[in-house]
Amino acid sequence: MLETMRWLSGEECLELLDQTKLPGEIVYIKCFDHRDVASAIKNMVVRGAPAIGAAAAYGLVLAASGAVANKREIFLKEMETAARELAATRPTAVNLSWALTQLLQELGGATGDPTEFKGLLLEEAHTIFNEDILGNRRIGQYGQELVPQDGNILTHCNAGALATAGYGTALGVVRAAHAAGKNISVYAGETRPLLQGARLTALEMLQENIPVTLITDNMAGFLMAKKKVDLVIVGADRIASNGDVANKIGTYGLAVMAEAHNIPFYVAAPFSTVDLDLKNGSGIPIEERDQWEVTHHGGHLLAPAGIKVWNPAFDVTPHNLITAIITDRGIVQSPYGENLREM
Amino acid sequence: MLETMRWLSGEECLELLDQTKLPGEIVYIKCFDHRDVASAIKNMVVRGAPAIGAAAAYGLVLAASGAVANKREIFLKEMETAARELAATRPTAVNLSWALTQLLQELGGATGDPTEFKGLLLEEAHTIFNEDILGNRRIGQYGQELVPQDGNILTHCNAGALATAGYGTALGVVRAAHAAGKNISVYAGETRPLLQGARLTALEMLQENIPVTLITDNMAGFLMAKKKVDLVIVGADRIASNGDVANKIGTYGLAVMAEAHNIPFYVAAPFSTVDLDLKNGSGIPIEERDQWEVTHHGGHLLAPAGIKVWNPAFDVTPHNLITAIITDRGIVQSPYGENLREM
Repeated sequence: MLETMRWLSGEECLELLDQTKLPGEIVYIKCFDHRDVASAIKNMVVRGAPAIGAAAAYGLVLAASGAVANKREIFLKEMETAARELAATRPTAVNLSWALTQLLQELGGATGDPTEFKGLLLEEAHTIFNEDILGNRRIGQYGQELVPQDGNILTHCNAGALATAGYGTALGVVRAAHAAGKNISVYAGETRPLLQGARLTALEMLQENIPVTLITDNMAGFLMAKKKVDLVIVGADRIASNGDVANKIGTYGLAVMAEAHNIPFYVAAPFSTVDLDLKNGSGIPIEERDQWEVTHHGGHLLAPAGIKVWNPAFDVTPHNLITAIITDRGIVQSPYGENLREM
Repeated sequence: MLETMRWLSGEECLELLDQTKLPGEIVYIKCFDHRDVASAIKNMVVRGAPAIGAAAAYGLVLAASGAVANKREIFLKEMETAARELAATRPTAVNLSWALTQLLQELGGATGDPTEFKGLLLEEAHTIFNEDILGNRRIGQYGQELVPQDGNILTHCNAGALATAGYGTALGVVRAAHAAGKNISVYAGETRPLLQGARLTALEMLQENIPVTLITDNMAGFLMAKKKVDLVIVGADRIASNGDVANKIGTYGLAVMAEAHNIPFYVAAPFSTVDLDLKNGSGIPIEERDQWEVTHHGGHLLAPAGIKVWNPAFDVTPHNLITAIITDRGIVQSPYGENLREM
């Protein structure tokens, strides 16, 4: 499988797989400072809530490398500024600010002087990266129990290895079920406007030899009506304390349709995606992106010039439409408020 | 507004607006025989159930012009063969075979010899064309009564002037509501894979100065949740006698989501779209089209090479999800079986 990101210790830089160029080209770009990382997150060179969390962590390491301050207080201020710049790139996924908070807390508790802090931050970034993969494997193990021996799984966007440090959340469950010898087949919704399902999920499944069929997003309902979907699994960008889930635009519609067809609807995400400070999904900021994502593809104009566009990158699925949330700490079911807080 | 098709009597040919090139280029292609028309229908140069019905009618006129038979029986056989070729291009819309049947019946009842038949067929084709426009204006008048004074209308695909001889069915209702001074605004679902919503509906609305916002298909659910949709109106390719409706893929999902949000869901179509021979929607043949429609755009590959694709061009919405069917003969509501048969 392609690596989403890798830290090159010799060059002190973060290499990111440019996911905007997949599946056509495999290109890694090198980030030498935190602004390179911020712009890569903003432009979706790297995307997926856990992946942008890990990338931002390495971004802060790069900010520390470039810092000139040798006074602790000034250095900490510099790090906070860099963290704010990184966090401002995309508002919806909570993993981004979660990862940065982890690093800043590490710094806050550290003694010594700035020259020692960089190593500390790098260690913490590596921890976040490695724990993400381990967490995803746990998500896979918990989640695969929910997958029938023979089953068709519908997924949306890409909650795979490419959306995380590795292995994936929703696709981690798919991988684990496949590895457990289950006879599964995946339907990948293409996920307009940026086609992460067509470009990334389809690629991951092909590379793993897991049977996969691509559909446009508007085919999901008819597919369900034809009884071709046994379960839906998606990732999450932020989960409110009551279990409401923000995820890629289109997730909500799938949840509504799954409910209408009595199909289980699962969300797979590391526990770091849960934002216990938020009462419910209405408090989750929903990023709206540029209209050219909808009106253009590969330089082609897909719609009349001057057309008005609404382009929210995410939507919110209320907890009552979610059968279970599969986390790295175990499976959570309703009542989510109680059960998430307990976990 | 752009003309979908026009008969050039001087040249004895049918000009079709090449809708595959919209909105970028306005190109008309000339069809000199029925095979040109058949291939234009197959390749979606002309599309939309009523429009392909009218185009096929002119196609049969062209077949008559080219016929060499001077014996009545042989001529009729030739016409039947040409009609079969035209009807075979696209299986789902019933208007195609309906229009051809109209012409063949006209021929069957005609006396005289083949040299006189061409004029007869041309007259009948013109009648179908003109009655389609008149019918759409009636649909508009009936339908606009259902539109509130201030309202946001979600539509899917293109059931507009470009899908018909003119004025449109679903967009006919929109035009009539706008002309009646109602303060309406349209959300156009882009309608993957061929983007008729983005390319055609958006264009029609811009040309008419009717406020329009483009969304990707997977945004419709979230738009409804945000209470931005007051009603949904779509066209139809075939309506079974119980009121089940085949229409562009994605229609069914919209109907499920409209139901979940208590939003009225209307279908607008000429009565010729009703197939009283079919008991219900399960008997409607659903065309599956080539996978390159999903995997490519403008020569660009959107997905990994070798990916398997499911590409049904239509889906079936059961009658219980439809608030009313707006026809050129009036508005039909449940129980559809009874009310359609009566009409």
